[in-house]
Amino acid sequence: MTEATSIIAGTEQPTADVAAACAAAAEAFATYRTTTPDQRADFLETVAAEIEADKEPIIEAAVRESGLPEARITGEVGRTTGQLRMFARVVRQGDHLGVRIDPAMPDREPLPRPDIRQRMVPLGPVAVFGASNFPLAFSTAGGDTASALAAGCPVVVKGHPAHPVTGTLVARAIVRAVEQAGLPAGVFSFVLGGTETGQELVRDPRITAVGFTGSRRGGLAIAQTAAERPVPIPVSAEMSAINPVVVLPGALERADIDALATAYVGSLTLGAGQFCTNPGLMFLPAGEAGDAFLRAAGAAVAEATGQQMLTPEIAEAYRSGAATLRELDGVRVVGQGNEGGENAPAPQVVESSVLEVPVTDEVFGSAGVVVRYDALEDLLPRLRGLEGQLTATVHADADDDGDVELARELLPVLEEKVGRILFNGWPTGVEVGHAMVHGGPYPATSDARTTSVGSLAIERFQRPVAYQDVPEALLPDAVRDANPWGLTRRVDGTLET
Amino acid sequence: MTEATSIIAGTEQPTADVAAACAAAAEAFATYRTTTPDQRADFLETVAAEIEADKEPIIEAAVRESGLPEARITGEVGRTTGQLRMFARVVRQGDHLGVRIDPAMPDREPLPRPDIRQRMVPLGPVAVFGASNFPLAFSTAGGDTASALAAGCPVVVKGHPAHPVTGTLVARAIVRAVEQAGLPAGVFSFVLGGTETGQELVRDPRITAVGFTGSRRGGLAIAQTAAERPVPIPVSAEMSAINPVVVLPGALERADIDALATAYVGSLTLGAGQFCTNPGLMFLPAGEAGDAFLRAAGAAVAEATGQQMLTPEIAEAYRSGAATLRELDGVRVVGQGNEGGENAPAPQVVESSVLEVPVTDEVFGSAGVVVRYDALEDLLPRLRGLEGQLTATVHADADDDGDVELARELLPVLEEKVGRILFNGWPTGVEVGHAMVHGGPYPATSDARTTSVGSLAIERFQRPVAYQDVPEALLPDAVRDANPWGLTRRVDGTLET
Repeated sequence: MTEATSIIAGTEQPTADVAAACAAAAEAFATYRTTTPDQRADFLETVAAEIEADKEPIIEAAVRESGLPEARITGEVGRTTGQLRMFARVVRQGDHLGVRIDPAMPDREPLPRPDIRQRMVPLGPVAVFGASNFPLAFSTAGGDTASALAAGCPVVVKGHPAHPVTGTLVARAIVRAVEQAGLPAGVFSFVLGGTETGQELVRDPRITAVGFTGSRRGGLAIAQTAAERPVPIPVSAEMSAINPVVVLPGALERADIDALATAYVGSLTLGAGQFCTNPGLMFLPAGEAGDAFLRAAGAAVAEATGQQMLTPEIAEAYRSGAATLRELDGVRVVGQGNEGGENAPAPQVVESSVLEVPVTDEVFGSAGVVVRYDALEDLLPRLRGLEGQLTATVHADADDDGDVELARELLPVLEEKVGRILFNGWPTGVEVGHAMVHGGPYPATSDARTTSVGSLAIERFQRPVAYQDVPEALLPDAVRDANPWGLTRRVDGTLET
Repeated sequence: MTEATSIIAGTEQPTADVAAACAAAAEAFATYRTTTPDQRADFLETVAAEIEADKEPIIEAAVRESGLPEARITGEVGRTTGQLRMFARVVRQGDHLGVRIDPAMPDREPLPRPDIRQRMVPLGPVAVFGASNFPLAFSTAGGDTASALAAGCPVVVKGHPAHPVTGTLVARAIVRAVEQAGLPAGVFSFVLGGTETGQELVRDPRITAVGFTGSRRGGLAIAQTAAERPVPIPVSAEMSAINPVVVLPGALERADIDALATAYVGSLTLGAGQFCTNPGLMFLPAGEAGDAFLRAAGAAVAEATGQQMLTPEIAEAYRSGAATLRELDGVRVVGQGNEGGENAPAPQVVESSVLEVPVTDEVFGSAGVVVRYDALEDLLPRLRGLEGQLTATVHADADDDGDVELARELLPVLEEKVGRILFNGWPTGVEVGHAMVHGGPYPATSDARTTSVGSLAIERFQRPVAYQDVPEALLPDAVRDANPWGLTRRVDGTLET
């Protein structure tokens, strides 16, 4: 298999033919957008089943290409198929169609009110850029693909070059599902290629939106191309974060220090630290309890061994970023783990005596920075100065009045910076559900108004259309008086289930 | 009153001090975002009452500055206050908070599920650019301001230079409401100035989103500035449209031709044609009935007299654009009205024998182009080639099987092009309600995924935040178990009212 290859309309080709994939997607859109909720949900469930049918070769390829352990990859298959099935349930229920009806008021003075109905329609073909760190759940059949297909949008995936075989196997599974569902082949295409292939995809006039998970550099390049098109299109890019963790004094005083430090290092080193939600920056109280925590964290990280990273380039970038952190003014090494091999660099935790330590860009991998603070009033300006983040974590003792008081001051500051706030846990581990937000202010994402994980993600790929005085026989099913799909509707502003 | 002036924190200044207004807005945000639904709704209702209290001088100023008739401006006051009160009801009800709760599952295998809750939070200070053609309903206290304030965002309005006195009077009314509500003064500011003042406002780092209604040139300039900021921000710009009207053969055959032509010319010339939804392009069947329609439309427009346009520049641009239309190949004048004065140019309707007549840019004013077509199959590619539009109108006889058949082919094509589809009416007249969409694909707007009129507009200025395992006592009211605001919530994916 070469890098440049395409699966378009069910056939594999030795070139990355972006134009052919986009043309097929545009042609398929006319049919796919009119599928009923049941048809679309059945299709998503078939995609899940086809991935499960090929589970063994997919897992084998993903383990080989990503270096991630088999247990993790096996879990990711479940996450991927579970995500597809969740969107199938969402589509069947139909609340995402956002139906609103303002009935006619023929006798209203001074002017009668027409009948107006609103529903969401799919945007059109969506380009999806998979992530290297989730070769399944954030890649070819990941959250972006699942939510775009659920919305009624054909998808063209630019496969990640770090796992071309995994991507191709998953793409074939989706193509089989397309065929079984009797849908036009262009509902899903897959192209493998380099940066220029990706840029060509974003520039293609038939593409109407982009979903991206990856580096800040990659996401910004795509957002810029999308904004400079003759017809600009929305980009939902999840880019990077350092995910601050604030430990409050009460929680620290009453913690099992060893357990807390082990849990921290566990979250920091999970999957070689290759998570968007890796806890890269911790704020820890000054004083003896904090010192004890750092001794325990240092011991825990010293026992950890580097795991193979996704690519040699990522391992090299980690080594370089980790070294930069160690060399910052006022920084000392708290603990460093063992080298695990050429592409398995040692995890590390450093402490900074400088509250304003210039940690901004994510060091992708297991590199933790701990900053000490004396009082919350010192910390708040530091937090206000942070860039937008995916998550913020607070460790607080809910029975400690002091901690509760501090948390009350902290929460509104964090709310303005992040998409998810956690208490007494660790940010790695992103539930796929209805309430999850995997998003946040720029530059964590390109648009804070949405999420790339969870059922709300479908709204990225829809837009509203209103129908005014359209005869019942011509109305789309979703907004007909007869309500054949049994949808919840907002009538004159009030939800009717 | 000079052009450059500000109303910031309740005081008027002789300079357009954008930085001071944005600083006040950022400071006010911390308080304003925490207001309860009742507090925020009361405030919106007070804004409406304060505008009504100053109704007479506001109407007097708006009539003088815009040249629009008093009856129209009086209607616009009602529309403006009605819009504010609608958003007050929306805020009290609270569905816009989009609460989602996925309860904890401590016994789930292989891992327990945490408790996750989601609500929408306001983005932050919003910059609003008012439109010239609605000096009240789309300006200082118009739909963008009302929906941003409803979402919990402080607003800085860049007043339109075509109606500075009207804008200032309305701004004072809002400032009085801010004071009465005991809110921080920075919740609302108003600056008057030129293009550079507007650019400075969009570039200010404290501004988090922009609402704009106006020309394509103005909207694109603002969108570009917003995209090039160190921290890019979303822009909701409603820019321009030519709003195609398709007359189907059955409707035409059975129409009262004179009544249909009079209604068309009435919509075309309403408010001197200065509506975003003005029907600039009509597709009419070839043949005798269409000829008769054009004779009647020609007669109706010949009886019409130009009304004063909003500014001399707008009148001049209309004259130039109307002349360009007349000089296109294959175009003949169907009818031309009377000049109404220096800034009140004559309305006109022209017919094009060329289906592909290159009408793209809006000619702002009463300039109609009618294109004849033989069969729908000729028309569909023409419609597919249109730019994005706010509206499309179909005239069809719902009892005519032929028309119904044609409309079925037409609807999906129009759905991909517009934000609102109307049957047997005219696009001017935009209801403020829950189901309205005043939006559409680029370049009608900068982001098709929303509307600038109607209650859905509030969603432009919000983003989701998730709370994971946050103790009940620290949760925001909207997502507490106790549900003190009595909100509808989505629990495990299902709405509970």
